[in-house]
Parts: sequence; structure tokens; C-alpha cells
Amino acid sequence: MSARGLLEHAARRGWTVGVAESLTGGLVTATLVEVPGASGVVRGGVVAYATDLKATLLGVDVGLLAERGAVDPDVATAMAQGARRVTGADVGLATTGVAGPAPQDGRPPGLVYVAVVTPGASVVRRLEVDEDRAGVRATAVDAVLGLAVELVAG
Amino acid sequence: MSARGLLEHAARRGWTVGVAESLTGGLVTATLVEVPGASGVVRGGVVAYATDLKATLLGVDVGLLAERGAVDPDVATAMAQGARRVTGADVGLATTGVAGPAPQDGRPPGLVYVAVVTPGASVVRRLEVDEDRAGVRATAVDAVLGLAVELVAG
Repeated sequence: MSARGLLEHAARRGWTVGVAESLTGGLVTATLVEVPGASGVVRGGVVAYATDLKATLLGVDVGLLAERGAVDPDVATAMAQGARRVTGADVGLATTGVAGPAPQDGRPPGLVYVAVVTPGASVVRRLEVDEDRAGVRATAVDAVLGLAVELVAG
Repeated sequence: MSARGLLEHAARRGWTVGVAESLTGGLVTATLVEVPGASGVVRGGVVAYATDLKATLLGVDVGLLAERGAVDPDVATAMAQGARRVTGADVGLATTGVAGPAPQDGRPPGLVYVAVVTPGASVVRRLEVDEDRAGVRATAVDAVLGLAVELVAG
């Protein structure tokens, strides 16, 4: 399971983890804290569901949000950087996307960006998910945890 | 379902909702955003899993945390107030407690406080839950949503 793997790899490196979530609404952080012993690694996170909270709580550039909207690879990366900073964590995870069924900011349902920033790397991944709201969210959770495992284990 | 009821009652009053979570780790916010149309009411939230984040991200008094620990009724209320302030919401929900299996800060597993602050009321409720980690969390989610429905519908 990715959550357990992430926490094990992070603990081995002495790294902590923080999360910034938009469309997943807290599911990434909730998945991590389900793992016994999570409190030694998981700092916490911010659910910036409203777009303006991505700026006020996570420090995402207001101009970037105005120009591109919330569902954008650079916004995802800035959210992950914000997660690291505001939680004081070594590793930041972020999700942003359109759960659907309606488009948002001109982006289609199922478009998701997940980003992970570690002390040595920053990677963002684009997903196009053809599922319902719950399926889009579950896929986003798996994708960001999987990407984090790759970067933290590597 | 409490999440749907809360969003309907809040929308009727023109109120928005913000969340501060500790032991539930994001589950309250995730439950709320599952409801279609949530984006009109749910602002977002903070998962202050590490105790120090309750001070830095939510403004809970450091002296209070040092004296009482994180699992305390006044800490729960201060977290709900912090949720309102940092998300700019009308209604703040908060959870803090011991998921177990080990005690925390001298508090037994299953001890949970949930708090809700609205423009006109502030209520905190104490729970003693005899279940495993997942059961304690699920009970805390139901309890804070149920309390919020009472206060927002009332």
C-alpha cells in the first residue's frame, strides 16, 4: 500500500510529510494518518478547496491563479511547496483537479495534477481520469502517494 | 446524511463552512466535499495533526497546549475558532482526540472532543469511544457533523 510505503521510506530518511489538497478534500492526509505510527512522520496539511485559500493558506501566487485557474501544473507544484513550508515538512504532496461533473475554469472533468516536492526533487504529473467524482478523487489519492513513494524511495 | 444536511442548512442561511482536524486527519472535510455542490459552501480546512501546527496554523494558544495537551475541550473550541478565521468561513468545525491504541498526553484512547462555532453559538462535546482507530475516527466525524447540523439548523 502506497501510504504505508511512503511513511516507511520517509521514516528511514528522517523526513516528515505535509499535504496540500484541493479536489481530494482531505483524503490524502486521512489515508496517511490511518497508518499506525503516522504521527512520527505526518505533520498535517491544508485543504485549500476554495481557490483563494490556495493563495492565503499556501502562498500560491495570486497572478498565477488568476491567469491559469486552480487546475494547473504550476499551481500544483506551488501547493506542494506551500505544504512543505506551512507544515514545516521535508516532503510536500499536492492535488488539484476537476472532480466533475461540470468543467471548472475551462478544464474538463477528470483532469488532475498531482505534485510532490522533496529536499532534492520536484515532480508534477498530469492525469486524465474517466470516472465519477469518487473515482477521480480515489485515482488522485493513489497517484500522489505513488509519486511520493517513487521520489522518497529513490 | 449529516454532511448533506449541514450543507443544505448552511446554504439556506448563506453560511460557509471551514474545518480544523486533528485525529480525523482530513476525513471531516473529505466527507463534506463528497456532497455535490459542496464548493458553494465548503471553504476548506486545516489538518493540524502535529500539536505545534494547532498553534502555528490555527492560532491555538501555546500556553494552553503546553498545559493541557492537544486533547482538551478548550483546544477543540480554539481550533474551531481558528478554522473559521483562517478559512474565512461562518461556521468552524473541529476534532481532537486519541485514536489509540496508545494514550496521548495522559488521555486514554477513544477520548474525543468535537467543537462547532457559528456566528451565534459555540458548543463542544465530549465522547468516549470504545472502538479501534478507524471506529474512533468514524465516530468523531459523525459527531462533529451531527453537532454542526444541530447548531446550523437551529
